[in-house]
Amino acid sequence: MKIALAQINYHIGNFENNEIKILDAIRKAKKEKADLVVFAELAVSGYPPRDFLEFDDFINKCYFSLNRIAKECDGIAAIVGSPTRNPGTKGKDLFNSAFFLSEGEVKSVHHKTLLPNYDIFDEYRYFEANSVFEIIEFKGKKLAITICEDLWNIGDDLLYRTNPMDELIKLEPDVMINIAASPFDYTAETRRKKILFENVEKYKLPLVYVNHVGAQTELLFDGGSLAINSKGTLCKEFNYFEEDFGIVDLGEMETSPVVPERQKPEKIALVHDALVMGINNYFGKLGFTKAILGLSGGIDSALTLVLAVKALGNNNVRAILLPSQFSSGHSIKDAEDLAKNLDVPYDIIPIEEPYQSFDKTLKPLFEGMEFNIAEENIQARIRGLILMALSNKFGYILLNTSNKSEAAVGYGTLYGDMNGGLSVLGDVYKMEVFEMARYINREQEVIPWNTITKPPSAELRPDQKDSDSLPDYDILDEILFQYIEKRRGPNELIQMGFDAKVVHRILKLVNTNEYKRYQTPPMLRVSPKAFGMGRRMPIVARYLT
Amino acid sequence: MKIALAQINYHIGNFENNEIKILDAIRKAKKEKADLVVFAELAVSGYPPRDFLEFDDFINKCYFSLNRIAKECDGIAAIVGSPTRNPGTKGKDLFNSAFFLSEGEVKSVHHKTLLPNYDIFDEYRYFEANSVFEIIEFKGKKLAITICEDLWNIGDDLLYRTNPMDELIKLEPDVMINIAASPFDYTAETRRKKILFENVEKYKLPLVYVNHVGAQTELLFDGGSLAINSKGTLCKEFNYFEEDFGIVDLGEMETSPVVPERQKPEKIALVHDALVMGINNYFGKLGFTKAILGLSGGIDSALTLVLAVKALGNNNVRAILLPSQFSSGHSIKDAEDLAKNLDVPYDIIPIEEPYQSFDKTLKPLFEGMEFNIAEENIQARIRGLILMALSNKFGYILLNTSNKSEAAVGYGTLYGDMNGGLSVLGDVYKMEVFEMARYINREQEVIPWNTITKPPSAELRPDQKDSDSLPDYDILDEILFQYIEKRRGPNELIQMGFDAKVVHRILKLVNTNEYKRYQTPPMLRVSPKAFGMGRRMPIVARYLT
Repeated sequence: MKIALAQINYHIGNFENNEIKILDAIRKAKKEKADLVVFAELAVSGYPPRDFLEFDDFINKCYFSLNRIAKECDGIAAIVGSPTRNPGTKGKDLFNSAFFLSEGEVKSVHHKTLLPNYDIFDEYRYFEANSVFEIIEFKGKKLAITICEDLWNIGDDLLYRTNPMDELIKLEPDVMINIAASPFDYTAETRRKKILFENVEKYKLPLVYVNHVGAQTELLFDGGSLAINSKGTLCKEFNYFEEDFGIVDLGEMETSPVVPERQKPEKIALVHDALVMGINNYFGKLGFTKAILGLSGGIDSALTLVLAVKALGNNNVRAILLPSQFSSGHSIKDAEDLAKNLDVPYDIIPIEEPYQSFDKTLKPLFEGMEFNIAEENIQARIRGLILMALSNKFGYILLNTSNKSEAAVGYGTLYGDMNGGLSVLGDVYKMEVFEMARYINREQEVIPWNTITKPPSAELRPDQKDSDSLPDYDILDEILFQYIEKRRGPNELIQMGFDAKVVHRILKLVNTNEYKRYQTPPMLRVSPKAFGMGRRMPIVARYLT
Repeated sequence: MKIALAQINYHIGNFENNEIKILDAIRKAKKEKADLVVFAELAVSGYPPRDFLEFDDFINKCYFSLNRIAKECDGIAAIVGSPTRNPGTKGKDLFNSAFFLSEGEVKSVHHKTLLPNYDIFDEYRYFEANSVFEIIEFKGKKLAITICEDLWNIGDDLLYRTNPMDELIKLEPDVMINIAASPFDYTAETRRKKILFENVEKYKLPLVYVNHVGAQTELLFDGGSLAINSKGTLCKEFNYFEEDFGIVDLGEMETSPVVPERQKPEKIALVHDALVMGINNYFGKLGFTKAILGLSGGIDSALTLVLAVKALGNNNVRAILLPSQFSSGHSIKDAEDLAKNLDVPYDIIPIEEPYQSFDKTLKPLFEGMEFNIAEENIQARIRGLILMALSNKFGYILLNTSNKSEAAVGYGTLYGDMNGGLSVLGDVYKMEVFEMARYINREQEVIPWNTITKPPSAELRPDQKDSDSLPDYDILDEILFQYIEKRRGPNELIQMGFDAKVVHRILKLVNTNEYKRYQTPPMLRVSPKAFGMGRRMPIVARYLT
């Protein structure tokens, strides 16, 4: 049996677009004499559709699309993910289902049993868990269909009390087919492969795995669809971050030579590619082409600009330099050098004049008070205002350039440098920003070395340095990582050897700045614990503050 | 048996504060010779603790607090909500539990069976569902403990496959005790009481129900704790929106005279009281006292100011008038009249000068281009900047004054009038804003009648009216309500008689402005479907757009 794997970049709610892509793949699979073509989880709607699933109209559109796709399935079968209504009187309204389409119609529907409801996942919000286990008999083979998380309840620490493959294996299947919507983070590849191989080893069955690829706002899907034979040999593996299509033969797979495992890309390269895809898809799927950003001469905006140019092309990105009286000479030079290296159009708009006008306007109220955070923020907000004015006037989307370390401790101005339609580096710690800048410069100087080596500064008051008010970034980032990604509390951190005073100060900063992060743009997610939908905190609370 | 009900305003993560309040109530209950005192769901931590639950340190603090509370329980028993660790190797790490404390120690722990995971609820994100049913035997009575949602799987449309009271009733209890964290919306009282009475009718048992009161950022808890005897007579009912304490005697309850049911407050009065509590608690729990807001002369900022004054006192609110060349004379007069009526300090800061400076600064780039949305937004953002400068300088929190109709269709400027720490009216449609303004003026003119009767305008260009670009608010609000609260799709709306073109335009506006709502402040939730944590939509999508 020849099985085609279709790794597709879907667009949430864009039924027409998704259907065209699915139908194209079905036709291609037919042409290449495949017996069956496999698509990803919730392929018809895109993933995650979130609360669109609560609209009857949306579910109807899924069914209409699915039925049109079924009609194309003559001479070939397909497995396609789509939501279905729960016909029972108990439980949630929907199932997260895999449709088996053949001979122009829906032959059977198989529901997801294990519904992830952690981090960025909310599936139990919408779906009832499956409790009926059936196998597909097709051309003399028995197919065991599972959906993403269904294969993940394996190993020592079990999140669920049931395991659908333990039920399906009783029906003596010949192959496991898993349709997935498993997002990227820099740990995902390793964990995902480990889980898939463990399933093959446990059930002694070949596995065909089809994942989503592409960005859905902050969520980045890397693809990596694959096939493993029953002996645990990787027979096919798709590229990351791009659509792909390929065919495996179940019989040949068992004796096929080992595909040499691809060299594991280093973390920073993966994150780099993920971010470029994230920017590209954000613009493409929203129907925008042009980006604008504020270029300060610092490393965060420099890196954001490089990634934007890679995602959108140098002609589609406009850089704006917004110097103030506190900007150092090298800042403007470094920013200009970078714009020239990338051949990106740029303008210099000094903010002196608007600043003076606010100074004058506020004088009656601020009389006799010292320059402080209020005036610092005025500068950042003037910049934000000018960038948004250009964005509104010319139809650009403003890219936010803040990094994860800043977002964590609230080192940024709401309605100022925290503005933007999309945060590119909001899930990238400062030390990783440096690392990626060096990665980009590995063959030639793209980002001026001075930008990478000079001490970071917000330049909102004379001779300001980030280190005036924050610990050094290597310490800061390690504490943040332990607290945010590893959920270690203050006592654990102090036991690890971090200075108690620094630990308490940092955790307090993280928790008291929840209100700022609530209003930040969506951040491209590359870590196992990003700010945004995967990390949900109360704003009004008193914990570690 | 005498049972005390303690309706308390908890503070999330503020273990010290919560513990003090719980201990005070235990001492009071002892003094009044109660046998048992009942507290709300997750009383120890506050509700909802959200992802704090993922921190071991946080759970440890819950246990420490609980153990200290247990020590106080000699001569009296208590039922207190707190999370517990799941000792098993399968399932989620935690249970949502009720502790039965007596003789200075934890006598038994009872877990929640039905875990709400819809709208604002995420309980399956953290908790494993209970599957063991035990009763408490105490002083010759059998107590059936359930936690909030556990009583809600009753009636025709069942969200869950199990019903914990169906199990507990087999153990022949004498009374049902339900500890809850059931938030307010203007439909909640009716639904909640209906469900509670249905349980009494079904199981023929008296019911003691203890709920949270107080605001947790956007979530407003109204309290309304109560006791019903086995015949379905309401014997005790606590006030809404305030802490309360009271005792019922299980024996006397059965023969006690009927408590005359409180006159059901009208919706707009409930919402009014909820918003006042929401503002008050936001400030109180964050440790702030003073608010600032921009007063335009329009109805939204007028109503927000009135509510803020009721919540914080007139000396703690500062109004800023920010007129531009497009502000009409009556706007300034109406705003001043209101500030004077309320005896609130106010300043007038014309934005002309900063506007001219941006005009000049941007001239080289905007040369030859017409005045459009970019210039409109510059005005709104100058106002936002000035308000934030005052907020930063004087330690005020900026109140956002946008209403739900505007938030829905994106009629507002990001980083301008959408600024604020808290949105007061973000869940109140424009027609409800009018209604509440008339409610406030029911005895005397607080809000100038001219503010209420004049046509709404953003005043960002000459002679602008909201109705230039939006349908009349009565039509708009009805379509929004049907789409947002009722999840009706375009076809259903058109079948209801709304104009097809208007429907498509409005739904498109709602869906394409998801990116704006993503960055708005938290909105006090008063409806069954508010923007924010209870309504989760993709930003990059193409559905009804």
